[in-house]
Amino acid sequence: MVVDRCNIAVLGASGYTGADAVRLALGHPGLRIAALSGDSKAGQAMGEIFPHLGHYGLPGLQKVEDIAWDGIDAVLGCLPHGASEEILSRLPEHLLLVDLSADFRLRDVQVYQEWYGREHTSPLLLARAVYGLTEWARPALKGARLVACPGCYPTAVLLALLPLLQAGVIVLDDLIIDAKSGVTGAGRSLKEANLFAEIGESTHAYAMGGHRHMPEIEQQLALASGRGVRISFTPHLLPMSRGELVTCHVRLAPGCTAADARRALEAGVRDEPFVHLAPEGLSPATRHVRGSNHCLINVFADRLPNRAIVIAVIDNLVKGSAGQAIQNLNVMLGQHENLGLAQAPLFP
Amino acid sequence: MVVDRCNIAVLGASGYTGADAVRLALGHPGLRIAALSGDSKAGQAMGEIFPHLGHYGLPGLQKVEDIAWDGIDAVLGCLPHGASEEILSRLPEHLLLVDLSADFRLRDVQVYQEWYGREHTSPLLLARAVYGLTEWARPALKGARLVACPGCYPTAVLLALLPLLQAGVIVLDDLIIDAKSGVTGAGRSLKEANLFAEIGESTHAYAMGGHRHMPEIEQQLALASGRGVRISFTPHLLPMSRGELVTCHVRLAPGCTAADARRALEAGVRDEPFVHLAPEGLSPATRHVRGSNHCLINVFADRLPNRAIVIAVIDNLVKGSAGQAIQNLNVMLGQHENLGLAQAPLFP
Amino acid sequence: MVVDRCNIAVLGASGYTGADAVRLALGHPGLRIAALSGDSKAGQAMGEIFPHLGHYGLPGLQKVEDIAWDGIDAVLGCLPHGASEEILSRLPEHLLLVDLSADFRLRDVQVYQEWYGREHTSPLLLARAVYGLTEWARPALKGARLVACPGCYPTAVLLALLPLLQAGVIVLDDLIIDAKSGVTGAGRSLKEANLFAEIGESTHAYAMGGHRHMPEIEQQLALASGRGVRISFTPHLLPMSRGELVTCHVRLAPGCTAADARRALEAGVRDEPFVHLAPEGLSPATRHVRGSNHCLINVFADRLPNRAIVIAVIDNLVKGSAGQAIQNLNVMLGQHENLGLAQAPLFP
Amino acid sequence: MVVDRCNIAVLGASGYTGADAVRLALGHPGLRIAALSGDSKAGQAMGEIFPHLGHYGLPGLQKVEDIAWDGIDAVLGCLPHGASEEILSRLPEHLLLVDLSADFRLRDVQVYQEWYGREHTSPLLLARAVYGLTEWARPALKGARLVACPGCYPTAVLLALLPLLQAGVIVLDDLIIDAKSGVTGAGRSLKEANLFAEIGESTHAYAMGGHRHMPEIEQQLALASGRGVRISFTPHLLPMSRGELVTCHVRLAPGCTAADARRALEAGVRDEPFVHLAPEGLSPATRHVRGSNHCLINVFADRLPNRAIVIAVIDNLVKGSAGQAIQNLNVMLGQHENLGLAQAPLFP
Repeated sequence: MVVDRCNIAVLGASGYTGADAVRLALGHPGLRIAALSGDSKAGQAMGEIFPHLGHYGLPGLQKVEDIAWDGIDAVLGCLPHGASEEILSRLPEHLLLVDLSADFRLRDVQVYQEWYGREHTSPLLLARAVYGLTEWARPALKGARLVACPGCYPTAVLLALLPLLQAGVIVLDDLIIDAKSGVTGAGRSLKEANLFAEIGESTHAYAMGGHRHMPEIEQQLALASGRGVRISFTPHLLPMSRGELVTCHVRLAPGCTAADARRALEAGVRDEPFVHLAPEGLSPATRHVRGSNHCLINVFADRLPNRAIVIAVIDNLVKGSAGQAIQNLNVMLGQHENLGLAQAPLFP
Repeated sequence: MVVDRCNIAVLGASGYTGADAVRLALGHPGLRIAALSGDSKAGQAMGEIFPHLGHYGLPGLQKVEDIAWDGIDAVLGCLPHGASEEILSRLPEHLLLVDLSADFRLRDVQVYQEWYGREHTSPLLLARAVYGLTEWARPALKGARLVACPGCYPTAVLLALLPLLQAGVIVLDDLIIDAKSGVTGAGRSLKEANLFAEIGESTHAYAMGGHRHMPEIEQQLALASGRGVRISFTPHLLPMSRGELVTCHVRLAPGCTAADARRALEAGVRDEPFVHLAPEGLSPATRHVRGSNHCLINVFADRLPNRAIVIAVIDNLVKGSAGQAIQNLNVMLGQHENLGLAQAPLFP
Repeated sequence: MVVDRCNIAVLGASGYTGADAVRLALGHPGLRIAALSGDSKAGQAMGEIFPHLGHYGLPGLQKVEDIAWDGIDAVLGCLPHGASEEILSRLPEHLLLVDLSADFRLRDVQVYQEWYGREHTSPLLLARAVYGLTEWARPALKGARLVACPGCYPTAVLLALLPLLQAGVIVLDDLIIDAKSGVTGAGRSLKEANLFAEIGESTHAYAMGGHRHMPEIEQQLALASGRGVRISFTPHLLPMSRGELVTCHVRLAPGCTAADARRALEAGVRDEPFVHLAPEGLSPATRHVRGSNHCLINVFADRLPNRAIVIAVIDNLVKGSAGQAIQNLNVMLGQHENLGLAQAPLFP
Repeated sequence: MVVDRCNIAVLGASGYTGADAVRLALGHPGLRIAALSGDSKAGQAMGEIFPHLGHYGLPGLQKVEDIAWDGIDAVLGCLPHGASEEILSRLPEHLLLVDLSADFRLRDVQVYQEWYGREHTSPLLLARAVYGLTEWARPALKGARLVACPGCYPTAVLLALLPLLQAGVIVLDDLIIDAKSGVTGAGRSLKEANLFAEIGESTHAYAMGGHRHMPEIEQQLALASGRGVRISFTPHLLPMSRGELVTCHVRLAPGCTAADARRALEAGVRDEPFVHLAPEGLSPATRHVRGSNHCLINVFADRLPNRAIVIAVIDNLVKGSAGQAIQNLNVMLGQHENLGLAQAPLFP
């Protein structure tokens, strides 16, 4: 379908996000996986680390410094924050960089330092980064060299709220976001808290009042509204692997109703390939989007006057991470935006 | 340990709530299970319906009208609403009635009719009912004939918020409750929505703006505060069987902080056998209370000024249902309140 | 990619198998979904029944008798047994028929009647049916009008054992197959046994000594070996939605070892696009194939002399059902065999 | 109920087995938890490590060497193998020792060394150890100083097969055991393989041909039958936390039927408080015993002549570990055998 394939390197391919980027890239007619990195697992085959990807003739895992960059056109960076910045800032200039870490999301290095506990050492590169919430960034994505993919929670929240904000049907006072996520959001790292026996048949809130996606959401809402924004954000861990649901308890603008909000969303997402307003009354469930790049949204009237409830679901590893990264890369390359992302959700 | 056992009948023993009432009663030294009803399964042994209860010499399931009431002292009613009212209102006067249905929770028959879609036909019996949130109803429970056990969500919400309300550290304006529950809250009835393949690896909100526990919570908060209350209540279904977590986004009273709220809770639950304030910073998880009659609560500062986040967890089938019923019966009988309820949570 | 698309009708599209057939067909460049049937849900949109398929412009559900067959080239029959035979036998002769039910798998109508409790009323059509274990049926599939797709368990068992049988490294005496499956094998029908609260955190064996896939496996092993075969087959239900694992405890032919068996398998599946021998020592897990058309197999030495353990995993809804059906249709149509089936497994 | 309580120390209380021993001991009227050890977590409160046990006034975790042994009567050893032997062999002689590790199960130190990869350094203590499969060890338990609790798989297998062996209805040739377990069998240690995202929605076999419980089962079957025994044993990991099911594919003695086997089991377990024959046709499920000390068994005819299928379920942490340990201690102390173990299973 596409003659000239873009050769990509996936950095950090030994994590869940990296593996899902590889999964999606394998089904993309315009991409070719030219290199994979995974420093602590360099020298191993991808199939040793992820047997589900063992039959695709993938390149073996290398150390980043051993990658031959000449034949590579673009990088999907699936590295931890900190490491990401340090590595991406040293890569050859000809590479397109799509970063899935948190390193280039926050515009203000002070805010970055406050929330991530380290100094940002690539402010010049940061200044060039485009915040890649695809649906709201297309013009900037074309021609960008570095795109910072939003966090998973910000993706769901912003896709739901930006159309409402733009249409003037909500105000940002007293915005309370109660979020729920499967455990892959925490990655493949070894923590007691992520063991099956700890997670199964249980739920709890985490990062009370201090989740790192909060300043990111605040930053983007502030940019969109032109004023400072503070939000309440409480994420919960659920006994499932994939999927993310955000319940946004919003205040309506004076005179506006939940029905107005539905109409605004309908207009706002009408032409989007991946963002959908659910039929009236349907409660979006994470199973509706599992494994896909879709975001499904709905709006409900609240019993409290002048408030509404906006719910959005995504697959945190796809639209909340690897899928959005590839969507961004498609725009950067001038390709059709849903190349490699067309597959329907997997249910059950 | 106790010479005179109280003979009980469990009505509706073929459902999950009934089965858990039987489980707990089996371990209670002061109760003897004298009769079990399950109309559609009358004639069957309990072990046919619940094999995990097959080794305890339980009486077989009968139709309610076939039960010999003379030898029975108390009833645990685990029937659906509507059926519960109709049956309990016809039972002999000597019986103590502990009702787990919704039929005697709402004081106002109009409100009942509005939310449950049927006329209440036992207003006289309703007038005698005690709302059995044990910790707040002990004086009334002694001597009561009929106790209406609270719904599962109201139990968790009220145990968390009443001490704060009483201490004057919160106000009820703009109260947003985002709740999460395992699927046993929906009972054992055959609905496509409750199939494993529908529930597993997914979450969604349900009963948007119209869950029947909402007016119940509003009623009790109004009684406690002396004024009308409207709340926002959004429950979510989680891929787990047991457990309930309520995230209460509350407004603090002027001048009060989250730390004040913690202190108020600490004082309010200090002497309670089943309600506990979690250590500072610990996020209550449903696994902390699974299978037990405990309620675990904590308070967290919110990023929004003048707000706090109060989280409570219970096992919906125990403290939210069968366990609280037995706790109530213990108080009614003048027995030690934790008889039959002392077992520690089951984790993992 | 393909100019002339094949127009298909999916019958029984309101079940899990039908939905997965639709999911896969949507990603197939050579197929166009022209009609969907779902008798009890006729008149509804697919998105009402399966919201995850709500954004694809699918035709609405019809009654089978309302489908206009003229514009349709092939049928994927996802109907219950019995209904399938009755409907497929009345369809116009120009249609290619790929049946996923059990109605055309057993060659002997007496055996069919014994196991399915009803008389087979289409023996003439049955006589024309090809047993569609794709890898072993390619010549017969070309030119076939009706293909009976194997059951999920037979698919996994036969893909693992036929290469060993053909190579002469196993004998079929004392063959013990211990199988495990997720609950989607039981479909979307409303049974108490399939509720989340019944399935979660539990496992049990079912259909002891009498699962309907047993005679099917026996039939195919008998055909392959040229003599009568009896097997022991014990399936277990697991707390998961998708995935199937068969543990085949086999007797080795005199003088043969597990290493011989591995070599035979390696040779037998070398050129297969979807059947893979796992690396030595890797234990196949259902997560390795979830959502994909792959079958992953491995062989292990047994502690008992002259025995080996052969393990195969598939996704029961894909390679065990809808995926294999499309693979068969591809062969029937002379298309590339992995069209529409190339997507990598979804993990986690 | 019991005036003189037995003071116990639980060693290794920071693991799942230790925590379940504490849970059960808390409900035991004849035991008092006097000390808890957890070397790497010494100094912490039990509630920090296991919040579900935070409300019971438990002693804090100590290093083993800091425990004051004078006031202690018995030890529940929940330590890893190796560590267990080294520590238990140095404890004061007045202590009753109930060991849940593998260190004192195998009679032959050579076999121990072969399977556990280390030399056994306490052969004298080993010589005094009683193999504590309670139902088959009561005479020896009275007066024993050291009891080695069986592994979880051996417990389920032996409770099912020993009555059949004793009655002469099975022979041990060609014994194939296909076992399934939840993940708590692997403990709380940090391994990637035990992460929720790895285990959820998947199953696989593990320890192919080489699980350490295999020689233990062989040893006990050899002791019971008076001759050498080799078995095939294949365990599988399931996406659940608790529960274990063993499917024993057995050969019947000449002239015996599955019905004979059922009768033999019925006779063999008739007076057992915790071992039950399921009603005819009921397939034992792990949910039937979750959280309890019960073992539920059934026998089914096999399609292969002269074979039968024997299935047993236990909760691996209770009857397969901590519960059986307490049952053993009860016998050692001359107490009623089900003290502390009477609670009914938790379902759902």
